[in-house]
Amino acid sequence: MTNPLLEHHSKREGADETQSLLPIPRLPNSSRCAIHCKQSARFSHGSSISNTHQPEQRSSDNVILFHLGFRLPQDKSTLVQHLSSVRFVVLCGSFQRAHHIAKRFTSLKYLNHCHTDRYLLLQPLPSVLVAAHGIGTGSIDVLLHEIYNALDAAGASNWCFIRIGTCGGLGVPPGTLVFTRRALSGDLKPSLRMFVLGEQVRFPATLDSDLTNSLVSHGKAMYGSVCVHGDTLCAETFHIAQGRTDGAFVPYTEEQKLSYFRRCRSAGVVNLEMESLALAAFSSRVNVPAAVLCVVLVDRLEHETPVKQKHELGMFEERAIRLLVSYVLSHVTHAE
Amino acid sequence: MTNPLLEHHSKREGADETQSLLPIPRLPNSSRCAIHCKQSARFSHGSSISNTHQPEQRSSDNVILFHLGFRLPQDKSTLVQHLSSVRFVVLCGSFQRAHHIAKRFTSLKYLNHCHTDRYLLLQPLPSVLVAAHGIGTGSIDVLLHEIYNALDAAGASNWCFIRIGTCGGLGVPPGTLVFTRRALSGDLKPSLRMFVLGEQVRFPATLDSDLTNSLVSHGKAMYGSVCVHGDTLCAETFHIAQGRTDGAFVPYTEEQKLSYFRRCRSAGVVNLEMESLALAAFSSRVNVPAAVLCVVLVDRLEHETPVKQKHELGMFEERAIRLLVSYVLSHVTHAE
Repeated sequence: MTNPLLEHHSKREGADETQSLLPIPRLPNSSRCAIHCKQSARFSHGSSISNTHQPEQRSSDNVILFHLGFRLPQDKSTLVQHLSSVRFVVLCGSFQRAHHIAKRFTSLKYLNHCHTDRYLLLQPLPSVLVAAHGIGTGSIDVLLHEIYNALDAAGASNWCFIRIGTCGGLGVPPGTLVFTRRALSGDLKPSLRMFVLGEQVRFPATLDSDLTNSLVSHGKAMYGSVCVHGDTLCAETFHIAQGRTDGAFVPYTEEQKLSYFRRCRSAGVVNLEMESLALAAFSSRVNVPAAVLCVVLVDRLEHETPVKQKHELGMFEERAIRLLVSYVLSHVTHAE
Repeated sequence: MTNPLLEHHSKREGADETQSLLPIPRLPNSSRCAIHCKQSARFSHGSSISNTHQPEQRSSDNVILFHLGFRLPQDKSTLVQHLSSVRFVVLCGSFQRAHHIAKRFTSLKYLNHCHTDRYLLLQPLPSVLVAAHGIGTGSIDVLLHEIYNALDAAGASNWCFIRIGTCGGLGVPPGTLVFTRRALSGDLKPSLRMFVLGEQVRFPATLDSDLTNSLVSHGKAMYGSVCVHGDTLCAETFHIAQGRTDGAFVPYTEEQKLSYFRRCRSAGVVNLEMESLALAAFSSRVNVPAAVLCVVLVDRLEHETPVKQKHELGMFEERAIRLLVSYVLSHVTHAE
C-alpha cells in the first residue's frame, strides 16, 4: 500500500535550496478558526476519524486555556491588547533559556502571559513571543493548542512558530546548527501517531519549507558550513527511544544501537530530539508555518554524552540563539 | 492471538480488595542495578529488542544525570549523603504543587536536589522526595530514569513511587479520589508503546497492587466512598487524545467522543490523565513498586471543563494531598 503521507513532502524533497531561499519568509494568514484548516488529507489511510469536523461548541468565546491560565471570553480583551501583533512565536524547552532569549530582544521588562507555573509565555516585543514548552511531545502539544487559541482570540494573523533547542547529532560534530527538513517518528515516517478515541491515527507532520529555507539562508550567511539542513528523528523518550545506554535499563546492545543510528543516517537523519514531530503535526494541521533549529551537543555516532567542556556547550547554544534573534529582528524591526 | 501482557494482571483483577489490603506496603528491595530487573516477559510478542541485555558501559560510575544536574562519580558522595534513606518518591506535575506537598512534610527548609530548571527534586524528610515531572509521558520518563539512577548511586533500597495528580473522570463526580488499578493506553491496553531502535515495542505497565490496595485502605478510612479503585486511561496529549473539544482543532464529533468514553467506562476506566502509563511501564521494568492517585476535577461524561468553583477545585486537590501526606507519614514517622 502506498503511503498517502509522502505526497506532502514532494516539494521539500525536490526543492533546490539555493533557488528557493527567500529573504523574507512567506507567512500565510493563519486560519482564524480551526475549521479553516487545510482540507487536504490529514490522516493516514483507513482512519474513521473525521478530517474536517468541528463541533459547534468549539468556540473562541467559550474556551479555558488551563495551562496558560486564561479564560475566554473574560480575558479576551487582555489577549487582544497584547497578542494581536504577534508574528513570531519562539519555542524552547527550558524556562531559563526562554528568559535568556527574551532578554536578547529587549533590555526592558517584559510580560509573562502564562498565569500558571506550567509554562512560560514571554513577550519581549509586540511581535515576538518566547514560550517554554517543557520536554516531550505531550508537553509541547498542550502549549501549542493554547497558544493557538490565545492568538486566535487576539485576532493575530501572519504569524509562525520557530522552535530552538539542543539535540544529539548523527555524523555531525558538536556545534552544528541543524535546520529540520522533515521531523520523523522512530520508524522514520513524517507523521505523529496518536490514539484518538481508541483508534491509532497518524497526523502528517510537515514543517514549512519556505520559512526553513529562509532560516537556513540566514544561518549560512552568519555561520557558513556549520549550518546543516536535514531530517530530525523525534524520539518519544530521552533514554530508551534515543538508544541511550545511561538510563535505568538498556534493552539493546551497543551494536544494535549503532546499527540503527547508521540506518537513520543513511535515510537522511542528522539529529535527534523530542518535540519537532508534535510541532510539525500541529502546525501543518492548523496551517501555521513552523520551523525547527537545534544545535548539536554530541555526535551520537561517536559518544554517548557530550565530551566538550561546559563553556563550549554554552557557546554552541549561544550560536543558535544569536542566529534566531538576528533572523527574527531582521523581519520585525521595521514593523515595531 | 492472545495477548501475553494480560497474564500480568491476573493477580490484580482477581484480588479481593478487603482481604489484600495491608496496613504497611510491601516494598521489595529495589534492584541496585538494572540487570537485576524482573526476568519475566517484558515486551510484546515478536519484538527483537532484548529483554535482559545490559551493555557494559551502563555503570553508576559513569553516568550524567543531565536533567537533574548530577554527574557521577563526582557527585556520588552527595547523593549517598542525602538520598540513601529515601523510601517514598512522591511525583506530581507542577513545581508549585511539589513545593506545596513538600511543605506539608516539614516546617523546616528543604533541599532541591535538581540543579537545573527542568524538574524539581525536593527532600522535606530523609525518607521522602517530592519531584515535579511536568506534563506527559516523555517528560516523566526522563525524570524516572534519573531519579532511579540517583537512588541507585546512593544505595537506597526499599523505596517506591507514588504519583499524585488531577484528572478528568468518567462517570465519577468532581472530588472523587481515583486509585489506579491499571494504567491503559488509548486502545485500552496495559502497556506503553514506544519506538525502540525503529521497532515498535510495548512495555508492559503494571502498578503495584499491594501498595495501591494499602493506599486505597488508607483513603477509605479517611474519606469513605469518595475513594474509587479503577482503571486509568493515560492519554498521549491533553486535547485530542483526551477527546477534548476546546483545542485548536477537533477531528471528531461530540457523539463519537461520548461513544468512546462510554466504551472506556464499560471497560473499567474511571479517569483520564497523561503520565500513569509511563510510570507503570518504568516501575515494573525496574521492579520498584508504584501507585497513582488522582483527584477528579470534572466528569467528562457530563462536562468538557470543570464547573466547580475555583475554591472547590482547590479543596479537592487538598483532599488528595492530605491523604498522601497522612499515608506516607504513617509509614515513616517511626523511622525518621
